[in-house]
Amino acid sequence: MPPLHDIAHLAHVELLTDKPEECLDFYVRYLGMTENGRSGDSVFLRAWDDYENTTIKLTAAPRPGVGRTNFRAGSPEALQRRVAAIEATGLGRGWQDGDPGYGPVYVFTDPDGHEMGVYYETEWYRPTGDLVPALKNQAQAYPGRGVSVRRIDHINYLGVDPVANRDFARDVLGGMITEQIVLDDGVAGSWLTFTNKGYDAVWTRDNTGTSGRLHHLSFAVDSRDDVLKAADLALEHGVHIETGPHKHTIQQSFFLYVWDPAGNRIELDNPGARLVLAPDWQPVDWSAAERAKGQAWGLQTISTFHTHGTPPVGEEQEESPATDPEGDAHGAAR
Amino acid sequence: MPPLHDIAHLAHVELLTDKPEECLDFYVRYLGMTENGRSGDSVFLRAWDDYENTTIKLTAAPRPGVGRTNFRAGSPEALQRRVAAIEATGLGRGWQDGDPGYGPVYVFTDPDGHEMGVYYETEWYRPTGDLVPALKNQAQAYPGRGVSVRRIDHINYLGVDPVANRDFARDVLGGMITEQIVLDDGVAGSWLTFTNKGYDAVWTRDNTGTSGRLHHLSFAVDSRDDVLKAADLALEHGVHIETGPHKHTIQQSFFLYVWDPAGNRIELDNPGARLVLAPDWQPVDWSAAERAKGQAWGLQTISTFHTHGTPPVGEEQEESPATDPEGDAHGAAR
Amino acid sequence: MPPLHDIAHLAHVELLTDKPEECLDFYVRYLGMTENGRSGDSVFLRAWDDYENTTIKLTAAPRPGVGRTNFRAGSPEALQRRVAAIEATGLGRGWQDGDPGYGPVYVFTDPDGHEMGVYYETEWYRPTGDLVPALKNQAQAYPGRGVSVRRIDHINYLGVDPVANRDFARDVLGGMITEQIVLDDGVAGSWLTFTNKGYDAVWTRDNTGTSGRLHHLSFAVDSRDDVLKAADLALEHGVHIETGPHKHTIQQSFFLYVWDPAGNRIELDNPGARLVLAPDWQPVDWSAAERAKGQAWGLQTISTFHTHGTPPVGEEQEESPATDPEGDAHGAAR
Amino acid sequence: MPPLHDIAHLAHVELLTDKPEECLDFYVRYLGMTENGRSGDSVFLRAWDDYENTTIKLTAAPRPGVGRTNFRAGSPEALQRRVAAIEATGLGRGWQDGDPGYGPVYVFTDPDGHEMGVYYETEWYRPTGDLVPALKNQAQAYPGRGVSVRRIDHINYLGVDPVANRDFARDVLGGMITEQIVLDDGVAGSWLTFTNKGYDAVWTRDNTGTSGRLHHLSFAVDSRDDVLKAADLALEHGVHIETGPHKHTIQQSFFLYVWDPAGNRIELDNPGARLVLAPDWQPVDWSAAERAKGQAWGLQTISTFHTHGTPPVGEEQEESPATDPEGDAHGAAR
Repeated sequence: MPPLHDIAHLAHVELLTDKPEECLDFYVRYLGMTENGRSGDSVFLRAWDDYENTTIKLTAAPRPGVGRTNFRAGSPEALQRRVAAIEATGLGRGWQDGDPGYGPVYVFTDPDGHEMGVYYETEWYRPTGDLVPALKNQAQAYPGRGVSVRRIDHINYLGVDPVANRDFARDVLGGMITEQIVLDDGVAGSWLTFTNKGYDAVWTRDNTGTSGRLHHLSFAVDSRDDVLKAADLALEHGVHIETGPHKHTIQQSFFLYVWDPAGNRIELDNPGARLVLAPDWQPVDWSAAERAKGQAWGLQTISTFHTHGTPPVGEEQEESPATDPEGDAHGAAR
Repeated sequence: MPPLHDIAHLAHVELLTDKPEECLDFYVRYLGMTENGRSGDSVFLRAWDDYENTTIKLTAAPRPGVGRTNFRAGSPEALQRRVAAIEATGLGRGWQDGDPGYGPVYVFTDPDGHEMGVYYETEWYRPTGDLVPALKNQAQAYPGRGVSVRRIDHINYLGVDPVANRDFARDVLGGMITEQIVLDDGVAGSWLTFTNKGYDAVWTRDNTGTSGRLHHLSFAVDSRDDVLKAADLALEHGVHIETGPHKHTIQQSFFLYVWDPAGNRIELDNPGARLVLAPDWQPVDWSAAERAKGQAWGLQTISTFHTHGTPPVGEEQEESPATDPEGDAHGAAR
Repeated sequence: MPPLHDIAHLAHVELLTDKPEECLDFYVRYLGMTENGRSGDSVFLRAWDDYENTTIKLTAAPRPGVGRTNFRAGSPEALQRRVAAIEATGLGRGWQDGDPGYGPVYVFTDPDGHEMGVYYETEWYRPTGDLVPALKNQAQAYPGRGVSVRRIDHINYLGVDPVANRDFARDVLGGMITEQIVLDDGVAGSWLTFTNKGYDAVWTRDNTGTSGRLHHLSFAVDSRDDVLKAADLALEHGVHIETGPHKHTIQQSFFLYVWDPAGNRIELDNPGARLVLAPDWQPVDWSAAERAKGQAWGLQTISTFHTHGTPPVGEEQEESPATDPEGDAHGAAR
Repeated sequence: MPPLHDIAHLAHVELLTDKPEECLDFYVRYLGMTENGRSGDSVFLRAWDDYENTTIKLTAAPRPGVGRTNFRAGSPEALQRRVAAIEATGLGRGWQDGDPGYGPVYVFTDPDGHEMGVYYETEWYRPTGDLVPALKNQAQAYPGRGVSVRRIDHINYLGVDPVANRDFARDVLGGMITEQIVLDDGVAGSWLTFTNKGYDAVWTRDNTGTSGRLHHLSFAVDSRDDVLKAADLALEHGVHIETGPHKHTIQQSFFLYVWDPAGNRIELDNPGARLVLAPDWQPVDWSAAERAKGQAWGLQTISTFHTHGTPPVGEEQEESPATDPEGDAHGAAR
């Protein structure tokens, strides 16, 4: 098995949107991200404590979803090792120029077809003007605008075969499996880490049998209270809250799920002080019976969690967050 | 209309339980209350910042539910005014000795038959030993055990006719209506305050048509994070979480609902810095359509909220919190 | 003694500034207040959950300090009672037109000369556009900008004779004394409430022997975490932090003290769920020996707390927050 | 330079105490740790989310201070690599049996003489009874008692020569320097990490010129609010608060420093969601002028931070936390 830390961390992710202006407003005003350049149909946006230039690359496209996920390697040597391993799988696509501020990136896909890239060379972000932080051990001034997400946290992919994706992430990229959903018919979701966080990337089964979709992208905030504030702000901004705030059973992170205006699912997440420090951590497997208990404090997993992804498929294509079929008109007691 | 502050505050409430030992453990170990004396089949318990001797009187009884609710009057004169007004309604039952540490109490019922009492004379709680607080402007040392509820917050009664109860509370006791649920067939719930809190007592329609039941009793904690911790602790203590944590649309308090071992619904609640300071506050009415949107961030009001109360009636009598008919075995993605 | 609630609450306060543009930026961008009209040299600003039109009236003036403090009466009758009592003291100045959105105000001073007003008639604030809140039981949309102060909390006056001021506030306005500093030479500070909050107005001894100065004006936020965020934001905005965050021994509120660009001291404050509900609360007196222990967790009261007020007097007039004479260059260990 | 993750994490630390019973009470009742076995003069204690058996080994001794610090290696191979490197320095002492539940440990010292050990083989903690957590991805039930520290966070050593210690930790153990204090006369403190946390071990200059002392041991809690609660609880338990709560400039963690009954300095710490993910992080150096600004929000570094360590030396030996020379009897305003 490859060394755990050849991939240093999840770096930046391209999100696709068919509503670029509304999404830009969502990421800047609601999430509190900072625009950091444009290129073609893309706007580069950053969370205030990410040390590189870009957290997400928001690209206008015919349909929402996820473009390339970029991982940073731990060293030039680690990069070479991972590229060799990827090439051996036949999933490699070759070297390309990186996004502005990034060196050469080796592009590949996971078995499900999600586009990925790995690179080592990078420029550190250099803030100017009001963006210079008061404390120099911080990447950028804290914006104090909307949710003010601190950093990218993890990505969750929908895919046809979680096992093939998981094995690729573990055996080729060097991830460590920390938790899994194991139903009667096999692994339905697998959480992997490249760091001391509980997870950096997740592959879950797409019940529609579609390849290459996004389940959600997650940003970390500093406290559970910040997640609650994100919900307060969603209400004021008219942002669609899908579910939460609540505590996940898996990984125990505190979550809120919202949809960006294009329907991409975004999580705001806080893990408290939880880390996975054991180098020999064994995967924690959750059965169907255990999942039936809902999230940590009993909230049932919302049904759209099993169907909605981007781009939408089938019935989902007509769905709108504005209609709420579960409305209960009999609310006699609050 | 009587002066708002003739009733100074909700004081202490008698809870009935057919599982006295398990309930005592729940209130002391989970909620972090302090035992402060016994009398007959009753145990007196206190929250750490209530200034009087008793927060709840836990009484062994054949069935769970609520016994007497005690209100403290704002002055001896205010007490006389309220007693005269109550007597005029015919709902008075006369003067009795108060619980230990309390002076004479005038006992009455609301139109629905919930037993109530109003008094002025009281002894302030005097802590000893480890219960002496470090800061003398605090009633008792902060226990740091379980939820550590700070003070009683409010009570919510189920009743046959919310309007009659509401009018009694407003016109006879001097409460101010702050919010209401007004469905097509009339008022289904009414929130009233005697203080600058958003509410101290609530009367909601009992869909079973039963009189005198308890919807819930609520305790205040200092922050929304404390409510989240209460949920964490409920999980570890095996306490049944009915719904939450989430934010109420009505009054915007942050809530968690659990059941004590006898089935009495208990809320842990934090209002943030919200107060009702306007002396001419107008009731905020919520329609069926508005209630159908669920709680503030979209959580649907749980169905048991419309049926479960104590003592249980009808089907509820056979119900057990252990069985969860909403279990979802298809939770492929978390 | 007059009824406690004849004064319903502290309403809005006029702050004077010789740096009106910088102060406006401070209140809008740092504190997150909303501009709500202008008149002459004044800008009206509001906190998002205050139900009336104005929280502070920021007025350009040759020197910083406090202008008129406005209190709302609990009813037209309460207003008449208080005006009669004030007139009897000879401190009344007569009726005037109120600020925009307010009815007639009776103007007077406390014995120390701080200008005050009391009124009953008022218009409720009516938000439009983006300021309309998602939940209609809230005065205005939550801004999510900077500190986002929720409501005015209290005012602390410096004065020559705390006892005379305190007695006026208690005997003429109807306040209740909740806590005091009682040094060997008498009362040095007195905290009074008109509500169920621990305090609404404080009179403390001005060691410079000057009349009519402001010690600080305080705004409430929803949690202690919000106070910490206010400190994070002060750092990024270049706002002078005088002391805190820490917990007061007196009243146990969690505080941060900053200075607006004109030097007016502003507190961000959270009391948790603490209220004073007892109608017969007895003043808690703190001696010099008790005060010498510092704030609740041991922070020594900062020396400028005993000298700085607005307008500045004596040496203070040359003082600048930028110079920090306590700097410690020997900080070998953090 | 050795690979960053050959040392997987700081594991468990032996603390020495001349007041073993009082210290046990402090760690169990105030910090909320769980006793997990005894051996000779030692009691093993654990934080609820540490996956191994021991977090601290509390050993009765003539004087307080730090015994052995144990690090877990990332793999058997990593262990062999580190042992070879240590042996090459001449600081190795050889293999010993580990504490109960741990395999063989290679014992050595840093250049300053602090005893250390590194091992790979370990048993995972297996809770029983009430200590079994509700969620199986957690090491032990959340205690809900006192501070309830989650896990060990870092250790800070006092030493004669920070540079020699730092170079040893970097070049021999494989740590990465993240931040430093660099005064005119050289490095006065150096923060190193073996993980994605900002720091796991710190070496600071001992101004008394003594070798082998402890500055502090730190435990992580889940939120800044938990640190505030730790201060509230310290007050009630009579625990000496040395300084805080406040935010460190260095590493930006939110801190509270208390002393155990033997005088060992203990920190309660929360970093928010901050991590060091960059594999090429460059040390952030802080000058004397920068340190003179105090901690992040301006709190001056307390003088005892530069003198107090365990075991005490010189004047410190007579010092008592009960006497507070900075007391200010002139606290006219709060």
